[in-house]
Amino acid sequence: MTDPTIHANDLPAFAERHIGPDDGQIAEMLATIGRSSLDDLTETAVPAAIRATRAMAIEPADSEFAVVEELRGLAARNQVLTSMIGLGYYGTITPAVIQRNVLENPAWYTAYTPYQPEISQGRLEALLNFQTVVSDLTGLNTAGASLLDEATAAAEAMTLMRRSSKAASESVLLVDEAIFPQTLAVMQTRALPLGIEIVVADLSSVTTGEALVAAAGGRDVFGVLVQYPDLHGRVRDHRALADAAHEAGALVTAAADLMALTLATAPGEWGADIAVGTTQRFGVPMGFGGPHAGYMSVRAGLERTLPGRLVGVSVDVTGAPAYRLALQTREQHIRREKATSNICTAQVLLAVMASMYAVYHGPRGLRAIALRTHAHATALVAALRKGGFDVADEAVFDTLSVRVPGRADDIVQAALAEHTNVWRHDSDTVLISVDETTDLHDLDKVCRAFGVDAPSEVAIAEPAWDGALLRTSDYLTHPVFTSHHSETSMLRYLRRLSDRDFALDRGMIPLGSCTMKLNATTEMLAITWPEFANLHPFAPLDQTEGIRHLVSELEQWLCDITGYDAVSLQPNAGSQGEFAGLLAIAAYHRSQGQGERTVCLIPASAHGTNAASAVMAGMKVVVVKTDVITGNVDMDDLKTKVEEHREDLAAIMVTYPSTHGVFEDTITDLCAMVHDAGGQVYVDGANLNALVGLAQPGRFGADVSHLNLHKTFCIPHGGGGPGVGPVACREHLAPFLPNHPLDPEAGPETGVGPISAAPYGSAGILPISWAYVRLMGAAGLRRATEVAVLNANYVAARLRDHYPVLYSGEGGLVAHECILDVRPLTKETGVSVDDIAKRLIDYGFHAPTMSFPVAGTLMVEPTESEDKLELDRFCDAMIAIREEIEAVGAAGNAATSVLRGAPHTAVSLVGDWDVDYSRQDAAFPKGVDPLAKYWPPVRRIDGAYGDRHLVCSCPPPEAFED
Amino acid sequence: MTDPTIHANDLPAFAERHIGPDDGQIAEMLATIGRSSLDDLTETAVPAAIRATRAMAIEPADSEFAVVEELRGLAARNQVLTSMIGLGYYGTITPAVIQRNVLENPAWYTAYTPYQPEISQGRLEALLNFQTVVSDLTGLNTAGASLLDEATAAAEAMTLMRRSSKAASESVLLVDEAIFPQTLAVMQTRALPLGIEIVVADLSSVTTGEALVAAAGGRDVFGVLVQYPDLHGRVRDHRALADAAHEAGALVTAAADLMALTLATAPGEWGADIAVGTTQRFGVPMGFGGPHAGYMSVRAGLERTLPGRLVGVSVDVTGAPAYRLALQTREQHIRREKATSNICTAQVLLAVMASMYAVYHGPRGLRAIALRTHAHATALVAALRKGGFDVADEAVFDTLSVRVPGRADDIVQAALAEHTNVWRHDSDTVLISVDETTDLHDLDKVCRAFGVDAPSEVAIAEPAWDGALLRTSDYLTHPVFTSHHSETSMLRYLRRLSDRDFALDRGMIPLGSCTMKLNATTEMLAITWPEFANLHPFAPLDQTEGIRHLVSELEQWLCDITGYDAVSLQPNAGSQGEFAGLLAIAAYHRSQGQGERTVCLIPASAHGTNAASAVMAGMKVVVVKTDVITGNVDMDDLKTKVEEHREDLAAIMVTYPSTHGVFEDTITDLCAMVHDAGGQVYVDGANLNALVGLAQPGRFGADVSHLNLHKTFCIPHGGGGPGVGPVACREHLAPFLPNHPLDPEAGPETGVGPISAAPYGSAGILPISWAYVRLMGAAGLRRATEVAVLNANYVAARLRDHYPVLYSGEGGLVAHECILDVRPLTKETGVSVDDIAKRLIDYGFHAPTMSFPVAGTLMVEPTESEDKLELDRFCDAMIAIREEIEAVGAAGNAATSVLRGAPHTAVSLVGDWDVDYSRQDAAFPKGVDPLAKYWPPVRRIDGAYGDRHLVCSCPPPEAFED
Repeated sequence: MTDPTIHANDLPAFAERHIGPDDGQIAEMLATIGRSSLDDLTETAVPAAIRATRAMAIEPADSEFAVVEELRGLAARNQVLTSMIGLGYYGTITPAVIQRNVLENPAWYTAYTPYQPEISQGRLEALLNFQTVVSDLTGLNTAGASLLDEATAAAEAMTLMRRSSKAASESVLLVDEAIFPQTLAVMQTRALPLGIEIVVADLSSVTTGEALVAAAGGRDVFGVLVQYPDLHGRVRDHRALADAAHEAGALVTAAADLMALTLATAPGEWGADIAVGTTQRFGVPMGFGGPHAGYMSVRAGLERTLPGRLVGVSVDVTGAPAYRLALQTREQHIRREKATSNICTAQVLLAVMASMYAVYHGPRGLRAIALRTHAHATALVAALRKGGFDVADEAVFDTLSVRVPGRADDIVQAALAEHTNVWRHDSDTVLISVDETTDLHDLDKVCRAFGVDAPSEVAIAEPAWDGALLRTSDYLTHPVFTSHHSETSMLRYLRRLSDRDFALDRGMIPLGSCTMKLNATTEMLAITWPEFANLHPFAPLDQTEGIRHLVSELEQWLCDITGYDAVSLQPNAGSQGEFAGLLAIAAYHRSQGQGERTVCLIPASAHGTNAASAVMAGMKVVVVKTDVITGNVDMDDLKTKVEEHREDLAAIMVTYPSTHGVFEDTITDLCAMVHDAGGQVYVDGANLNALVGLAQPGRFGADVSHLNLHKTFCIPHGGGGPGVGPVACREHLAPFLPNHPLDPEAGPETGVGPISAAPYGSAGILPISWAYVRLMGAAGLRRATEVAVLNANYVAARLRDHYPVLYSGEGGLVAHECILDVRPLTKETGVSVDDIAKRLIDYGFHAPTMSFPVAGTLMVEPTESEDKLELDRFCDAMIAIREEIEAVGAAGNAATSVLRGAPHTAVSLVGDWDVDYSRQDAAFPKGVDPLAKYWPPVRRIDGAYGDRHLVCSCPPPEAFED
Repeated sequence: MTDPTIHANDLPAFAERHIGPDDGQIAEMLATIGRSSLDDLTETAVPAAIRATRAMAIEPADSEFAVVEELRGLAARNQVLTSMIGLGYYGTITPAVIQRNVLENPAWYTAYTPYQPEISQGRLEALLNFQTVVSDLTGLNTAGASLLDEATAAAEAMTLMRRSSKAASESVLLVDEAIFPQTLAVMQTRALPLGIEIVVADLSSVTTGEALVAAAGGRDVFGVLVQYPDLHGRVRDHRALADAAHEAGALVTAAADLMALTLATAPGEWGADIAVGTTQRFGVPMGFGGPHAGYMSVRAGLERTLPGRLVGVSVDVTGAPAYRLALQTREQHIRREKATSNICTAQVLLAVMASMYAVYHGPRGLRAIALRTHAHATALVAALRKGGFDVADEAVFDTLSVRVPGRADDIVQAALAEHTNVWRHDSDTVLISVDETTDLHDLDKVCRAFGVDAPSEVAIAEPAWDGALLRTSDYLTHPVFTSHHSETSMLRYLRRLSDRDFALDRGMIPLGSCTMKLNATTEMLAITWPEFANLHPFAPLDQTEGIRHLVSELEQWLCDITGYDAVSLQPNAGSQGEFAGLLAIAAYHRSQGQGERTVCLIPASAHGTNAASAVMAGMKVVVVKTDVITGNVDMDDLKTKVEEHREDLAAIMVTYPSTHGVFEDTITDLCAMVHDAGGQVYVDGANLNALVGLAQPGRFGADVSHLNLHKTFCIPHGGGGPGVGPVACREHLAPFLPNHPLDPEAGPETGVGPISAAPYGSAGILPISWAYVRLMGAAGLRRATEVAVLNANYVAARLRDHYPVLYSGEGGLVAHECILDVRPLTKETGVSVDDIAKRLIDYGFHAPTMSFPVAGTLMVEPTESEDKLELDRFCDAMIAIREEIEAVGAAGNAATSVLRGAPHTAVSLVGDWDVDYSRQDAAFPKGVDPLAKYWPPVRRIDGAYGDRHLVCSCPPPEAFED
């Protein structure tokens, strides 16, 4: 389908769609920066020592039409059976109105993390709804805005409990044996480098602090974790256990199923301090394991220790209520190696879907779904018992544990013949989970597999549980959960919220280090096809051939692109990829008998997550200075530090090109120096968009990197997740990549264990990156990088006279982003980066990255997808703002200026007008097209107010009245 | 999947989503209107004589989840082969960014016809682009905003030529024999009742006026129509034919393929006066025949005779450029029986898609697609010739006519074995059309079917045609066609346009007679599945079992709902359904030896289309008076007219409930009176939303009706199309329903011929209505009607004290809509219905229907999908406006009031402010939520200015500068 005649430059057709500037614009921009060609540009910008010497071996690109056909072929190689496997992944019905208008709508999926809250009010409201759902259902005071999955949330709860308990530091975590196996395994991976010991025991009869300590082998216990309902489906009363734990000074975490909590007593009500879990079954397809939104909620008193993001209610300058991320001080970029978690990315898009599922169904609808599910489970229990099977007489919600001594494999096979997957727990036990999608026909199939008579009807009734287990408290009482049950109302609610936000479908989001490029529609198509969306992560291998083939091709391509030898797609965020990479380094050193190598060098300019990950991996962080003038790693200081740690050096973590947006020409020296001292080189792949096709970290000296598929490889940011952070490494580290206890194909036998709940992490969205590479081919990928570098240099060239460009490399060139120094202007006029960022909203732009890596600066990364018209619109706005700053400087009126007043809402225009500037200047400054005007819904938000008055669930409607 | 416990009222789950008000709201509203229950309401409102006495036999509803599964099952029964059938339907690639962000985006598909231009600027711009594409490519001055399909466009051209030529009235239409068979057949159906004779002849050697007349058998010729390229794929030079036609006083129409016109001389350049065709291959899937946008363009001088809608450029009150429908005086509601066409609905959504395909590809991209297509055709010609096959040595674009004496069936079978459809023209000839999707692999398959060697490569080159055939003129030179080739830019352009418009996803569109109800997402899902979207309408029967089963079920359900015995889904608009119904009546009378029955009685209050359709069907319109007080048909006048026309009465056309929104209790008398005089009763189904489940026209006395699936049965309005207008009738009329020459299953052998190009009209969107009925079941459908009636009566009750409700029936009740009389207010204060309609925009609403059926009034139809909150928001706005009118009355300042100033743009707020009212009152009047504010992009538009200065293609950018 490729057509050489259409594209004189020999690029695949899709590359012309993905890359913003056309040949004419490229020529004009090259002229502006004084380069004769893209080759000339990159040959100057990219140090010769690191330039790739051989072309990528990726097969030639195909057309969008052909690639969609190819994906259909892969989809056909997956078999979607009725899944009754459970273990945290359930069939669910995504309301079509939510699928089309959230998951498939660029207004939602192309949005960035809501760091600029004034232009993120829509998704912040949706996230507040999410927090309210979690908080209400778990009966705990404060819920965060999502975590990566249930297993990592449990691991975060583990460290939170250790931090917050009064127990001695050598105390243990006690985990009930009926826990999901992948959750336990992820906690074990996390526990090892932190020196935490996990004891697994049957806690069902623990009712005193003494018994608790006994269960822990006589050791002190800092935390207890139970699955609720448990692995076998049992709903148990944990009041006594919780009391016992508290008596022993331990905290209690429930890994709880939100759907079950509509019927069962909330963890907060039986004494849990923390609840974690997944919201997958709230309308988010299984997707072969993810992405879904994990959750955590905590009781009062623990809210300031929550890992991850938290949305709270504050006010804007007019006193109007406004949402924003609360307690920003917990972010890793401030706390660095003192951070309590390396979590950055959340699962915003999936959290929005789950919250909207709750809005759509409301408390009555959710309860009805749970009752119906429970009724089907109960009917199945009765049918199996009647047929003579041994099903324990316990309170269950949706999952049955059936004793079939010696026959489990036979039953699994018989169910397969009925097009149904059940779970072989061991040779004597089969687990069966029913869900929202289960109907009588499905029960029929299971009963046929067991050779028993099927129930002829299912009677919906209250669970016949002990009264202590039955939930009596209300939930989802806020009006938002009872106002949008008609599809019309739901549709309009979704539209209203998305209209408040600024995403890539409105304009450029020039965020340095975040690579907000096109997320092409064709790349998005396959993820909602049932053949990819409805696969259980633990489905038999032969049912998942298509997705496994896709995963394996993508792995090969990523190796080819990065020059590494092996890759794991399991990490479901960049931070997790970092962690996995560092674990591999540590395991490698141990395998070499050098377990004492634990020092990790990190330049001062690094992203704080690096340091936080290193600590999680059990390393000791030593900071290397950054040159104040050039922004580069201070090679002298590095030399000193390397020498100092010759015996215990584990690794260095550097970002390349640097976080200053520069191709440092010392990178090969740096690698050699560290290797020479026995250390490993970790290159953070955050800036890989400047390297693809031009240079390969795996060949210029690095040992391991994580990549961000949600940056370089087109997975949309989703308003703050999902992310995918594969870890790639050279051959000697490959045996130490992640693996998974339930999937032998998902990593090396010698691996470090799982770091995500699912074998392939967020496998459900890997078709996006697969399609991107397949559509671009080697030539397209290289061209994208070249144009990304061109675009950044064009912006730098146009703005240099107005704002100093802080760092640059060879020939005055930057890499794929540039830092604009605002500090002198601030000093002179009082106008801050914040003022500029908010004023850009009036001009119709998302702000660049603020104050990273250097306080008082703006970092601009245009990406290759923005065309010259949009770049010029941005540069014109920045120049116009510079003129406004000049005027402020002359008048000395920063505090009352249009810059400080920004952003301006439409409402602000109609009232009295007693400020120094005109309405016209406020709302329609130079260059703003009135027909494309974006209106922020609130004015500048007072974040500190909200932190002082922390409110993190839906406020009562009256709160919005005044 | 249905769950009785969730829905205490025994409604299917989907009905609760489709119907806006919940049980609590229904109770409140019943209290407001003083009715004890929905039954009480409908028993009072609906005359006992017509109430349905038996329940609908439709099977019980299923859940959305189950119905989607059922649709997947039907989809699996369609087989999508590679289609090389051609005949006006080609494989095409819908750019994914257009599919997702237009066809699957409610902002586009739920919009209404742009009669309120101030809130329709987005789609009006898209339609202006469409007109520019058609006008540029055909080389003719003015193009309309789309017609229904190529065949009906050709029929419209036929009547246009007859009207505009100077030839005698008994002159004939001369059609070249190489025309698509369905186009000829539709023209013949249309010609018969109008007394037009069509002569089909080989016109290839006609070069003089004399020869032309000779080809017409010596008769005068008013028009000539040629297919270009023709049925056999030949591109011919028609200059001499056109000259000959003009010499003979005839006009010339080219039925032209727009894709071919990127390479071939434009019809306007070789002398055609008119061009017609389809834009299907501009990215609109075949969909088993439709919907697609047909087109018509005409040379200068004919623009005021164009049928259908025409978008033009005008200005708003501030002088800013603004789009709106031009030359509104041509609409049938003004011209009635003097209208030149009954066309109302266009194919806006498909025209938008086609125009965006042109924006996306631009002139260079379109030409490249055409060249590539042509190159594949040329390669195939060479391969077949080399293999010894007889392929005529003529200029072809994409279609080959291969002589295979006696072997056509064998070749078709051999191609089938290669998963490819080719067209058996006759036993000796096979036609093969290649298209944008064709690749070497496809050519391979064809060559295998012929047993010849396949080409190993395809060389792209200029067509090796005679120079006179080669296009040399430019097209699509407006910047919009070269600005949005990156997907990022395209996505933002689509978003910007849709943000200018007000559609159902923002708020209520209370248009009387238009039934703007929910178009549920689940209903929309299947239409873009390849198994439905990629079927050729003339594919073999056994490849289309799934869609045929769906069609047949939908037909049965519609019969059951309406009480009729037979239905045809072929008419692709309500107007076409009317026409088909009247043709059936005429044919029936002829079959009874009563061909003299040609008088059609039409009440004065009828929609103008009725009269226009009657004239097209060869009938004589006689108007029956409407009672001024009650709005009902004047039974005395009816009696008089019936008596007067006892001998020649063909039919009466009435709308029920009436166009005044009232259940007339005289309907059974009316039917009896007409039947008694030998006439047939046609009930216009425009208001069927007030009847479904309550009354059946086929049982209370009517003989035939058309339905509007785009009103009652949830097909979205698409911004002004597609529509689907099935015709349903009693048994005696069934033999006279439409049929189709290329599909024996598509109607009775004795039928009146085709009235649409495709056997099942717009079959591609029938899954929408099928899903609606399947999801609602009989109980849900009936409930929807009851709530539609409730909602209208609630609005009437709340507004009655503020605006007189003009007509009502038993107990003061209206049916499903109500008419608010503004005339006294206008007289008193000078505030017009227009002022109220435009002021409603400031309040965030689409206006009700203006001045139909009574000038100076507003007709409100809320539908069942609006909940009480939205109805109250609307009523509150209307009451607030009433207060504004009071104030105007007191001040006597209508001309300078906020009402006359409406609508107010955001831009209008920032300038000087020297009017009587405040900015606050202008933009945020009482009850407007600032967080949900809709901003119109222009102020009130001066339509007359645009009609005086007719501009109907993209204006140069400079036009927008001042």
